[in-house]
Amino acid sequence: MKLTSFTDYSLRVLIYLGTDTSRRATISEVAAAFDVSENHLMKVAHFLGQQGWLTNVRGKGGGMELALAPKDIVVGKVVRIAEAGDLPAACFSSEPDSCPIARICRLRGALNDAVNAFYAVLDGYTLEDLVQNRAMLGKALQIQPLTFLR
Amino acid sequence: MKLTSFTDYSLRVLIYLGTDTSRRATISEVAAAFDVSENHLMKVAHFLGQQGWLTNVRGKGGGMELALAPKDIVVGKVVRIAEAGDLPAACFSSEPDSCPIARICRLRGALNDAVNAFYAVLDGYTLEDLVQNRAMLGKALQIQPLTFLR
Repeated sequence: MKLTSFTDYSLRVLIYLGTDTSRRATISEVAAAFDVSENHLMKVAHFLGQQGWLTNVRGKGGGMELALAPKDIVVGKVVRIAEAGDLPAACFSSEPDSCPIARICRLRGALNDAVNAFYAVLDGYTLEDLVQNRAMLGKALQIQPLTFLR
Repeated sequence: MKLTSFTDYSLRVLIYLGTDTSRRATISEVAAAFDVSENHLMKVAHFLGQQGWLTNVRGKGGGMELALAPKDIVVGKVVRIAEAGDLPAACFSSEPDSCPIARICRLRGALNDAVNAFYAVLDGYTLEDLVQNRAMLGKALQIQPLTFLR
């Protein structure tokens, strides 16, 4: 059972931004911190912006910042929406020919219950829960504090 | 959140065999019923045999048959073992460089709880639960009954 790298990176960007909400971050800075491609992160940032979780501020001193407080970003919701196109199995497809037993298969109901249980657990977490250890995260990600704030 | 096609096909083979336990099935017959590749199913059948869920009988009249009663094959166990190599996210990797925050990341614990909840639901189902509607499954899969049995 695998999440897409798109979801993985969406969560990483949110964790990065939630670690120090007093500063903005550039795509290239987050890409360097996690050693992932900037191109991939640009798509992720666009998605997170569309969903209302982050704001892109242009110009000098610009960059990404959270559009909501970390406590108001529910992890389950982020994962559910980021994973929307990634169906658990062929029987979840709307295409009638995905599997000859799709319409009568009892596995589909079982899998659906299991997927719901998975998201129900993640609905119990907000981004704030994931960044409680801000000092350690900031160090691991080498986030530079803004000098005028410290 | 996606299961591998390997897991999907493992479950399909078990459902096929569980639909009519009075007969053996060949790989090519199951591949035709689900319109999937024989090569792929051969690997699946080998895996299911290794795990003790099916037996391959050689020779004339041979083929695959369940090695256990459908009620003794737990769906959660099949999915868990078939998915073993497919990690939910990079932080589940044993490689230390998979993500710079892997050792301190609280998302990992949350995802682990969510994955466990997913499997806990599937542990509540056996293959017997999935093939209760045998007549409908047999028809949809065009499984030919053995004439001497009917």
